[in-house]
Amino acid sequence: MKKYDKLVKNAAGRMVPTEINGEVQVPFMGIGKFIPTGRKFAPRISSCANYPADGNKTIENLKEALIKAGLKDGMTISTHHHFRNGDVIANQIFDIAHELGVKNLRWFPSASFPCHEPLIKYLEDGTINRIEGSMNGILGKFCSQGRMQGVGVLRSHGGRYQAIQDGEVQIDIAVIAAPTADPFGNATGDRGPAACGLLGFALGDSQYADKVIVVTDNLVPFPCIPWQIHGNYVDYVVVVDKVGLPEKIVSGTTEVTKSPDRLLIAEMTAQFCDEAGIVRDGFSYQAGSGGTALSIGIYFSEILKKRGWKARFIRAGSNKYPVQMLEEGLVDYILDGQTFDLEGVRSMRENDGHINTSPFTSYNFHGKGNFASMVDVVILGATEVDVNFNANVVSHSDGYLLHGIGGWQNCLFSKCTILPIPLFRDRIPVVKDEVTTLCAPGELIDVIITERGIAINPLRTDLIEKMKNTTLPIVTIQDLKAEAEKICGVPAKPRFSDEVVAVIKWVDGTVIDAVRKVIE
Amino acid sequence: MKKYDKLVKNAAGRMVPTEINGEVQVPFMGIGKFIPTGRKFAPRISSCANYPADGNKTIENLKEALIKAGLKDGMTISTHHHFRNGDVIANQIFDIAHELGVKNLRWFPSASFPCHEPLIKYLEDGTINRIEGSMNGILGKFCSQGRMQGVGVLRSHGGRYQAIQDGEVQIDIAVIAAPTADPFGNATGDRGPAACGLLGFALGDSQYADKVIVVTDNLVPFPCIPWQIHGNYVDYVVVVDKVGLPEKIVSGTTEVTKSPDRLLIAEMTAQFCDEAGIVRDGFSYQAGSGGTALSIGIYFSEILKKRGWKARFIRAGSNKYPVQMLEEGLVDYILDGQTFDLEGVRSMRENDGHINTSPFTSYNFHGKGNFASMVDVVILGATEVDVNFNANVVSHSDGYLLHGIGGWQNCLFSKCTILPIPLFRDRIPVVKDEVTTLCAPGELIDVIITERGIAINPLRTDLIEKMKNTTLPIVTIQDLKAEAEKICGVPAKPRFSDEVVAVIKWVDGTVIDAVRKVIE
Repeated sequence: MKKYDKLVKNAAGRMVPTEINGEVQVPFMGIGKFIPTGRKFAPRISSCANYPADGNKTIENLKEALIKAGLKDGMTISTHHHFRNGDVIANQIFDIAHELGVKNLRWFPSASFPCHEPLIKYLEDGTINRIEGSMNGILGKFCSQGRMQGVGVLRSHGGRYQAIQDGEVQIDIAVIAAPTADPFGNATGDRGPAACGLLGFALGDSQYADKVIVVTDNLVPFPCIPWQIHGNYVDYVVVVDKVGLPEKIVSGTTEVTKSPDRLLIAEMTAQFCDEAGIVRDGFSYQAGSGGTALSIGIYFSEILKKRGWKARFIRAGSNKYPVQMLEEGLVDYILDGQTFDLEGVRSMRENDGHINTSPFTSYNFHGKGNFASMVDVVILGATEVDVNFNANVVSHSDGYLLHGIGGWQNCLFSKCTILPIPLFRDRIPVVKDEVTTLCAPGELIDVIITERGIAINPLRTDLIEKMKNTTLPIVTIQDLKAEAEKICGVPAKPRFSDEVVAVIKWVDGTVIDAVRKVIE
Repeated sequence: MKKYDKLVKNAAGRMVPTEINGEVQVPFMGIGKFIPTGRKFAPRISSCANYPADGNKTIENLKEALIKAGLKDGMTISTHHHFRNGDVIANQIFDIAHELGVKNLRWFPSASFPCHEPLIKYLEDGTINRIEGSMNGILGKFCSQGRMQGVGVLRSHGGRYQAIQDGEVQIDIAVIAAPTADPFGNATGDRGPAACGLLGFALGDSQYADKVIVVTDNLVPFPCIPWQIHGNYVDYVVVVDKVGLPEKIVSGTTEVTKSPDRLLIAEMTAQFCDEAGIVRDGFSYQAGSGGTALSIGIYFSEILKKRGWKARFIRAGSNKYPVQMLEEGLVDYILDGQTFDLEGVRSMRENDGHINTSPFTSYNFHGKGNFASMVDVVILGATEVDVNFNANVVSHSDGYLLHGIGGWQNCLFSKCTILPIPLFRDRIPVVKDEVTTLCAPGELIDVIITERGIAINPLRTDLIEKMKNTTLPIVTIQDLKAEAEKICGVPAKPRFSDEVVAVIKWVDGTVIDAVRKVIE
């Protein structure tokens, strides 16, 4: 099988393969231009006659469960990153696959982390053909070096649900690590010794995979409440000593930034949103887990408090700051896709207003709408932006694939997308002529806020009009680039070979860019 | 189109058509014998590009929504009985269809009620071809008289989900009457002026129908929490003055029985369960909403209290009695499929242990297991039983179709199924040589408890052994029949023509019996 074939220029001007890993691809056609005409993937019909009447689906161990699930060469195995860098199950799965001599697996994690470094040996010996999912850190570098046998495929959280739903990725075996479960397979992430919050990233897998294995270290009698994952989709339940490392569940920066530059960016962002009329009684926002984003949230909360307003909802990645706002009555709901600290986990368990969401409800572009486009303002990061407002979130300026897309692409559909970013990092400008990897078309990026100026996308004439009397330093994106280069000089470009090592999917399953092998 | 074709004898010995309404049928093959080999129904893939970015799917009125949804001849229209006899939306739908001159619709309600009597004119004029769903009261009589153009199809709640999931019934337009909803289509039944509890009967429709319309009289800003129905499945939202009549939501007997015979049956049932070791710390049960069932629940609760035990869960149809047990700490969870009074609605809104279920989680036989088989004991009614423990729940001894199946067939899979029934009703014996309509094969009915004796199914040698020293009057089913006939005489049989007017589906979609036209 050729890794990829026939490159064409897509609607974003990027050369992308029309076939990868033996599967035909649709090149990116523009935002909202690719309209699917097919039908959703249709999983096999099961029968209760083939499942234990007493509801007890427990199996001695993971190896037996994988054997019963029919693990064999070429299968697609999915796992989930609810434990982030504290995941212990994915490595066990491929140890077992290797022990059984199974080859050529497609690993389809919702994200991979440095804790998965041991899997490099299986990528090298052919146990795993490729990773389809974000590759954070060392696995991304491995891919960028052209060492992965298949072509990597990076999808957003919503794109991953879309790919499963639409049958682009057919999962043979989904393994769901669950902090609490019952013998029937009902499972939850919000309680148990390894509580991680929620299991939403595994929702699509549970619904569409051929076989579903729930692994837990906290088996409770039926019914496990809440049932974030329905046992009616589950084939086997395995009890292990430790399902994940709770101390590594905490992710992202959990403290507000102390950097004067970042605090300035945060303050400018909050002021911008306020002056543009975005902050209002009943507004909604989504901010990430970085120190700058946390600080912006605090500014928002101060504005609300001062004016006696209340936000309608915060889309999260939750942590102690939105939880505090919820508990202080400054917001009606947290619509949470992933808890980023243990206060988030606690709140999800305890607060009726702290709501579980999933990539299906929030992000799936092939649904009858989703939540992302209803958010008033979303605050995102980026590794690079260019003078056309295009943005990159997966690779660094040195060309290496080092981050996943997460929900980033999906969030861009909000009413206002703001990237508060430093003008340069390690003396490398963040604003460039062209992004190394295109993850977002510029038309979806509305505002770029740096410590040395704010650029509003010329398409957003409404925002430009609203800000015409501001004291904030409104500049052009070209100004920002010039300023950065004045300070840092024009950065050297990374050197790439022609070889495609990974592709970036757009939210509709089309290919928006290809990632090439770095020449070291 | 012939209404039906080619009758064969199925595994239960009943003559059933192999084709109805132009669709090929599988005759009942025995319990757990029909193993599906196909794939689930695959709905069309949608795109957010075709839905409003601001999430506002509201449409002026139901007529516009139906027109936008493409209402046309021959379509399948689904509605739900969460309002029971207080439904006002189904009649409006077919008024509109009639006004638009649309013909030959298949109405696919989760149940129909006397309030739907106005639809008889549309069954007569060809607006509606047939009802597939339970037909309570006058609509059942209309069908039994052979006046419906198509053949009626009766399914259990689980069988309805199965039929949707498996694509046996493809819904063109689902209309979901919701006590509260947001403009995106997220909807809940547990709050709002017409609160009815839950919307679980519409779950499968929302997931698989081509177009989904939510109708509400209580529109709230996004997000509607909880979202029992996900707006991501919804096409249009319509706001009306009144979505249902809350005063008619209350259903079933809401008070314990005062009849001495029924109290005796209830007491015998509780004693039987206790002596057979079914009532224990951590046990589970399901009882209906009739006066006898309520009384049995009270006996159970007294046993638990006396011994310091706690039930793990009650499967419900909830009302104030299970709610009281939950709030007194006598049970961990109510797993509720349908609230039967306003205390049930309140509790579902307020108590974390009062859990929403759906026909998918509880009853769908074509899932990877379901909840029904995990329940320790289920207490059900029946219109007739026969000497082989076969039971009927849809027709009376006069031959008329007067009840739906509800969850009755699905519940039979519990660890012990008990029918506490009077030996005769209106001087007509309930125990007969052969049931008029076969809804349940006798092997699933474990115990029949009447005021004059208890018959244990000979298959349940374990129960017979456990009860060998009881003071309860254990008799044979033949004894019960003889006793009834001694008192009432042998009842006259209803007279039927050969014409099939409806079929009864088993939980796996096969045809277990046919209902014939009554000769009046």
